[in-house]
Amino acid sequence: MTTLPLSDRQWQLQQQVQRCRDAGSALATLPLAQRNQLLRDMANQIAAEQSALLAANEQDLLAARARGASSALLDRLALNPARIEALQSSLHEVAALPDPIGQRRPFSQPPSGIAVYKQRIPLGVILMIYEARPNVAVDAAALCLKSGNAAMLRGGSEARHSNAVIGELWQQVLASANLPPAAVTVLTDVSYDDVNVMLQWDELIDLVIPRGGEALIRSVAAHSRIPVIRHYKGVCHLFVDASADVDMAIRLLIDGKCSRPAVCNALETLLVHADIAEAFLPRAVAALKARQVELRGCARSQTFSDHMAAATAADWDTEYLDRILSIRIVDDLAEAIAHIRRHGSHHSEVICTRDEANAEHFLNTVDASVVLVNASSRFNDGGELGLGAEIGIATTKLHAYGPMGLESLTAEKFVVIGHGEVRHPESRQP
Amino acid sequence: MTTLPLSDRQWQLQQQVQRCRDAGSALATLPLAQRNQLLRDMANQIAAEQSALLAANEQDLLAARARGASSALLDRLALNPARIEALQSSLHEVAALPDPIGQRRPFSQPPSGIAVYKQRIPLGVILMIYEARPNVAVDAAALCLKSGNAAMLRGGSEARHSNAVIGELWQQVLASANLPPAAVTVLTDVSYDDVNVMLQWDELIDLVIPRGGEALIRSVAAHSRIPVIRHYKGVCHLFVDASADVDMAIRLLIDGKCSRPAVCNALETLLVHADIAEAFLPRAVAALKARQVELRGCARSQTFSDHMAAATAADWDTEYLDRILSIRIVDDLAEAIAHIRRHGSHHSEVICTRDEANAEHFLNTVDASVVLVNASSRFNDGGELGLGAEIGIATTKLHAYGPMGLESLTAEKFVVIGHGEVRHPESRQP
Repeated sequence: MTTLPLSDRQWQLQQQVQRCRDAGSALATLPLAQRNQLLRDMANQIAAEQSALLAANEQDLLAARARGASSALLDRLALNPARIEALQSSLHEVAALPDPIGQRRPFSQPPSGIAVYKQRIPLGVILMIYEARPNVAVDAAALCLKSGNAAMLRGGSEARHSNAVIGELWQQVLASANLPPAAVTVLTDVSYDDVNVMLQWDELIDLVIPRGGEALIRSVAAHSRIPVIRHYKGVCHLFVDASADVDMAIRLLIDGKCSRPAVCNALETLLVHADIAEAFLPRAVAALKARQVELRGCARSQTFSDHMAAATAADWDTEYLDRILSIRIVDDLAEAIAHIRRHGSHHSEVICTRDEANAEHFLNTVDASVVLVNASSRFNDGGELGLGAEIGIATTKLHAYGPMGLESLTAEKFVVIGHGEVRHPESRQP
Repeated sequence: MTTLPLSDRQWQLQQQVQRCRDAGSALATLPLAQRNQLLRDMANQIAAEQSALLAANEQDLLAARARGASSALLDRLALNPARIEALQSSLHEVAALPDPIGQRRPFSQPPSGIAVYKQRIPLGVILMIYEARPNVAVDAAALCLKSGNAAMLRGGSEARHSNAVIGELWQQVLASANLPPAAVTVLTDVSYDDVNVMLQWDELIDLVIPRGGEALIRSVAAHSRIPVIRHYKGVCHLFVDASADVDMAIRLLIDGKCSRPAVCNALETLLVHADIAEAFLPRAVAALKARQVELRGCARSQTFSDHMAAATAADWDTEYLDRILSIRIVDDLAEAIAHIRRHGSHHSEVICTRDEANAEHFLNTVDASVVLVNASSRFNDGGELGLGAEIGIATTKLHAYGPMGLESLTAEKFVVIGHGEVRHPESRQP
């Protein structure tokens, strides 16, 4: 906790966080049915107040257009009836997921006679710091409530009107259920300086999840004394091994690069075993060029295409988030793995191979949160991997590694049931 | 990562950390038998070089005595043949534990057709920052190696000669096994300023475990950008419920307070239900006074003893680590839980009761890493809870909560095995 003097505004903010924390205690022991009902009530409330929500969103869009915002930002910001329906569906989907907390599993039966269990509990208060998309104030809060956590949501100022209405809807839902409205606290007037002060309050906030660009995440990580879920970027590789099925390799390449180039699980670099380059690369280049992908290759790769630019050293570390791909020919699996070790971002790494030993070696050796054999990098997604819903993604290994579902919003405590056991024999004497 | 310019010394330190990290990659895929053999070799090496180790330790003890060190510090610092034998035993015990890494467990079978697994992997580089006890350089390094991690050990300057010899023994063991000696790097000449610079290197070091007093842990947590395992203090409570077995409650109290008062799982506060105070407190007071425990009570508790000082507000938050106990009478379970919520430290909390509903309510409501029914707080210990060995204890919930065994030095990555699956239907066209 910081010991610096707080401004009046910051002191008020600290009271808000404290109320959110107290509200979290009420959620932690709330039965599953009541937690689920909150989400279903919110789905109804969103439907009932759809016009108010769309009007507030229109205010945000007008202001953004007036500032000359990019069409990409306007798209992320915009709500419409279809997106509102999607919000409702996702609330019902989260309500239908299994309960992540409360399970008590046997852990050990030590010789002392005590019985040791572990029991899943909520973390407490989750602070989300994010940009543009107003849906986060619905989706992320739903995952927090489902897992018994209180949520503090600090969205970008560009979505302030939309976020404020969503915050009010949560207040109404919580109040109707006789729960403290602070359990979902939407912060609409908190500057980045104040956020940096909040990030010192490690005894009030348990976890920070920043969602947005690399700069936002790096800034939060640099200022925070609270644990931060980090995911800086996705520089994802596809390695086409000598034994690869060429048709399959083309499919994985096109899906990884072209199906949604602006997302973090898209491919940025193609590594090709020298022995398969002749069979694979001309077809790959043709398929990519047909889809307007710009190619930047090593000297050997360049011989397979008339119009391939030379890749610079920076290319191997760049997350293009665009229709650009770097290509390198390697002599063997070891060289591919060494390239990934040096340039990968611990996100998603794919090998296309028919050689089981190579597949195993790749899976065991490559250090990434999701390692795939003969499947598209685009499967690195909470829903696709069977987590049900995703609150974030971690590319560092502490607490969570990879896409984070409900369980990542919990911890396990030890529960010990004894019959009067003591450790020291003398304590047994009266 | 810091972008500040590094001094020559710090640049050398960064090279050391990088070598340690590279060595960790070699350990991550080392078969279990070879990891275990390292520990057994170290046990032999310690036996072979016992006289060199004792001589170095004598140098540390002489210097500490010359500085007028406390007998407690001298005791923590001292090695002798019995303690060296204990070090060897603990190496063999860790070698005998099950492998924490490499297991691949089925996770999901999504409709896309991919098969999703999770696989345990090492974290990478663990930095231990600790005081006095030279055994940490053996025990902690053993747990790191067993779990496939590289270890950096920064012990206190008071143990520098002992630590240097232990570091050399690890070098010899690693070199004989043809492994990079940097896998266990003992830092003997690194100032606290340099440590604070190291704590910015979050891309080179994966986890920091400080072991020592609260001031050390707070300083590390305040300076670190790397995740830190935190355990500030143990203000542990025993609540004696109205239905408690009085004999059992006395046993739990004496074991919790007297069997080893200076450790973090010792009791600091006794909470007594008003309805059992008359039957329990006079006997409890007599047993405690017979063991020279100083008592500080609330006004109602004071009526049960002629010589009980009044507890001040500060007492309820104090970890005495000594033969002192604060006592408070409460009207019901709710008041006991509220007291623990306000004054507890998320360490160990005990209820003594024969009422199953109260036991369940206590277990579910109290937020501590270890919650116990009818068992001594002193069971909060990795060995006693069945973890096999303990590298630290966490009283915050991220990554680990409570005593940390080998599994806490690992993470799980996602492994996906496919047959050419892609996410977007159009990617299936050539």
